[in-house]
Amino acid sequence: MTLNELSKSELKNFLEKQQKILDGFKAKGLKLDMSRGKPSAEQLDLSNEMLTHCLDGDHISENGVDCRNYGVLDGIYEAKRLFMKMIGVGRWEIIIGGNSSLQMMYDVLAKAMLLGVKDSPKPWCKCEKVKWLCPAPGYDRHFAICEAFGIEMITVPMLDDGPDMDMVERLVSTDPDIKGIWCVPRYANPTGVVYSDRVVTRFANLRPAAPDFRIFWDDAYCVHSLDDNVPNILNILDECKHAGNPNMVLIFASTSKISFPGGGVAIIGASEENINFMKEQMSYQTIGYDKLNQLRHAKFFKTYEGILEHMKKHRAIIKPKFEAVLQTLERELAPIGAGEWSDPKGGYFISFNGLPGTAKRIVSLCKEAGVTLTPAGATFPYGVDPEDRNIRIAPTYPTLDELKAAIEIFCVAVKVATAEKMLEE
Amino acid sequence: MTLNELSKSELKNFLEKQQKILDGFKAKGLKLDMSRGKPSAEQLDLSNEMLTHCLDGDHISENGVDCRNYGVLDGIYEAKRLFMKMIGVGRWEIIIGGNSSLQMMYDVLAKAMLLGVKDSPKPWCKCEKVKWLCPAPGYDRHFAICEAFGIEMITVPMLDDGPDMDMVERLVSTDPDIKGIWCVPRYANPTGVVYSDRVVTRFANLRPAAPDFRIFWDDAYCVHSLDDNVPNILNILDECKHAGNPNMVLIFASTSKISFPGGGVAIIGASEENINFMKEQMSYQTIGYDKLNQLRHAKFFKTYEGILEHMKKHRAIIKPKFEAVLQTLERELAPIGAGEWSDPKGGYFISFNGLPGTAKRIVSLCKEAGVTLTPAGATFPYGVDPEDRNIRIAPTYPTLDELKAAIEIFCVAVKVATAEKMLEE
Repeated sequence: MTLNELSKSELKNFLEKQQKILDGFKAKGLKLDMSRGKPSAEQLDLSNEMLTHCLDGDHISENGVDCRNYGVLDGIYEAKRLFMKMIGVGRWEIIIGGNSSLQMMYDVLAKAMLLGVKDSPKPWCKCEKVKWLCPAPGYDRHFAICEAFGIEMITVPMLDDGPDMDMVERLVSTDPDIKGIWCVPRYANPTGVVYSDRVVTRFANLRPAAPDFRIFWDDAYCVHSLDDNVPNILNILDECKHAGNPNMVLIFASTSKISFPGGGVAIIGASEENINFMKEQMSYQTIGYDKLNQLRHAKFFKTYEGILEHMKKHRAIIKPKFEAVLQTLERELAPIGAGEWSDPKGGYFISFNGLPGTAKRIVSLCKEAGVTLTPAGATFPYGVDPEDRNIRIAPTYPTLDELKAAIEIFCVAVKVATAEKMLEE
Repeated sequence: MTLNELSKSELKNFLEKQQKILDGFKAKGLKLDMSRGKPSAEQLDLSNEMLTHCLDGDHISENGVDCRNYGVLDGIYEAKRLFMKMIGVGRWEIIIGGNSSLQMMYDVLAKAMLLGVKDSPKPWCKCEKVKWLCPAPGYDRHFAICEAFGIEMITVPMLDDGPDMDMVERLVSTDPDIKGIWCVPRYANPTGVVYSDRVVTRFANLRPAAPDFRIFWDDAYCVHSLDDNVPNILNILDECKHAGNPNMVLIFASTSKISFPGGGVAIIGASEENINFMKEQMSYQTIGYDKLNQLRHAKFFKTYEGILEHMKKHRAIIKPKFEAVLQTLERELAPIGAGEWSDPKGGYFISFNGLPGTAKRIVSLCKEAGVTLTPAGATFPYGVDPEDRNIRIAPTYPTLDELKAAIEIFCVAVKVATAEKMLEE
């Protein structure tokens, strides 16, 4: 019987019972964390070899660069070759950076504000207004960058196969203040959505009112599938070229969730024109990124296929965690009709939608019982979920046992918050 | 006999003879490089241990941080402790960054432009004009950052004990558009000047017209002495605190010329207020820098004293190179009174001043004979040396034999250019 079907007094009984269960958890003084998309220590162990003998007596790149010294602004060739196939770009269409793709996105946007991107009539900070499209639920740190720079965010609903492209097309083609959009095309954060071919094509064929509109294509989870195949989404750069928009997209990725979040390698892919433009801007900022770490990655993974093999090992560790969360949600919440959730085929998150007006309450109840979740609202621009219903669940970091305990508490919190809400009405 | 004392025909004979010598070098097809301040491979070998067994099975920081994972925006504590003493700041006055202090300077300035620094009434890009003081001869990449951001550079002469402080005080106290100054306080690039106590004190006691004026104190060569002692210059942050200006200085340093230029660690030091302000800005840009590399450095050097010991090994390699250059200049040019040069006690450069109007010609003659020098003018804002006389010599990268060959050619080029110039007049 779903909660909807209960009488008011039955609902009260249900609530009291669930509150007692929750109090029981509170008394245990647990400390569990499902807040951030962090790999577990077990996953990080998979790359430990990179930290030991990987560079023994060998710090020279294939084409003779001493990776210990200055130089090679855009990265060593074997690192480029490793990642070209991963993000679907060619040899002159890639820059290998430091340890953080977030930082590269921030930097590209900062330079766009201060100096402009290729094709900019003027630096964006000289524009009266800069607006940005933000498919939501989405990634909080993307939105935070816009907020830091005072860029006005416009929420675009996420549908099952990508952002609402009717809305994107309408806005982008009519409003020259709109300079860009955040996209996570594969296993979007947090919904797990994979962009359909039609969505990718429509992106590539946008006719923006702003001559310097840019798609920030954050392919953070490009090889992070939970089943056997990496989804063959359409190659955005190719599509943009076909559509006569080669400079419209900037692709970002990193090995943060392949090797080490604290010591990985970040990547930008784009048209050769864009890459040359960015390299010119970058040449004032640095003499080069950490080539030793690039060499470590090239030596450890060897080929793109080596990365795919490596990801199977990650999958063996994290898939049972996703299953544990989904099974518990299914068992505890589906029968009573409380909430709905994604069943992602990859990525790092499960997206949960509760009854409108319950997300903050659920997060706060969990907190009291020792379970930390991403703050409610974080998946929306300005941290405000207009319906207060979306919660991002990050299952990878806790151990399986911790996770099972945490998701059980989560389900009780959902029950309490849902019953409370229903009784208000 | 100096060239000044020669008759016109004697000078002509001298020139012809030197031109023949230079032609002889040209015929050899040499390829020598004294252009950039790069450590040699032999120097880099000193830190190779860091690339191999340094992290064997141990990636946890002293206070339990898994350096492989996300987090710790401002760096792990053992890295902070290592560098606090090096740049003379306390525990809450330091951020450990990525592999490039240039990048940190660029980033701090980019954020100042876009968002402002602590105490800024508004972001600098909203100011009608931003001006910057540039002691010259100075570091070309400092000036390039200003140029990239359209900041108007004002040249300040470098004296024997630091920048011309009369001029600095007068300009800074009267012009609110002046937002900062570049300083390399120890073994300045390229002059090798070490700031006197009086200069440091006068910096700390500036009373800028701009409330958000900042001294960019690039202590790039803080432990790079060529004799037994690191110079105990006055601690700029302490002096700024005493003078009631705690937020006026930002200190930068890196291990680029201690461990690896391509894989070192960069550092910012400043007042706790400044650090907290910068961390807040930085929190939008990245989740954290490469902590594994920070841990490598902490484990390898262990203490500040460990760094000083390590620098002795560098010195043993580079001191003979500086001596070779200086001896050749002394032998070839001093007797004929052609040019003057610095005799640095540390750092990476020898600064050469030729007869006014000869620097470009010398660099070009060297180029023809196979010796690459830093472009003439590079040591001045906008790449323009008003007297066309300063040349930066970087002796560290070539082998001793290559260096001896290169500096010999340099001396002949000086002789040719000087004689040519004198014959013009």
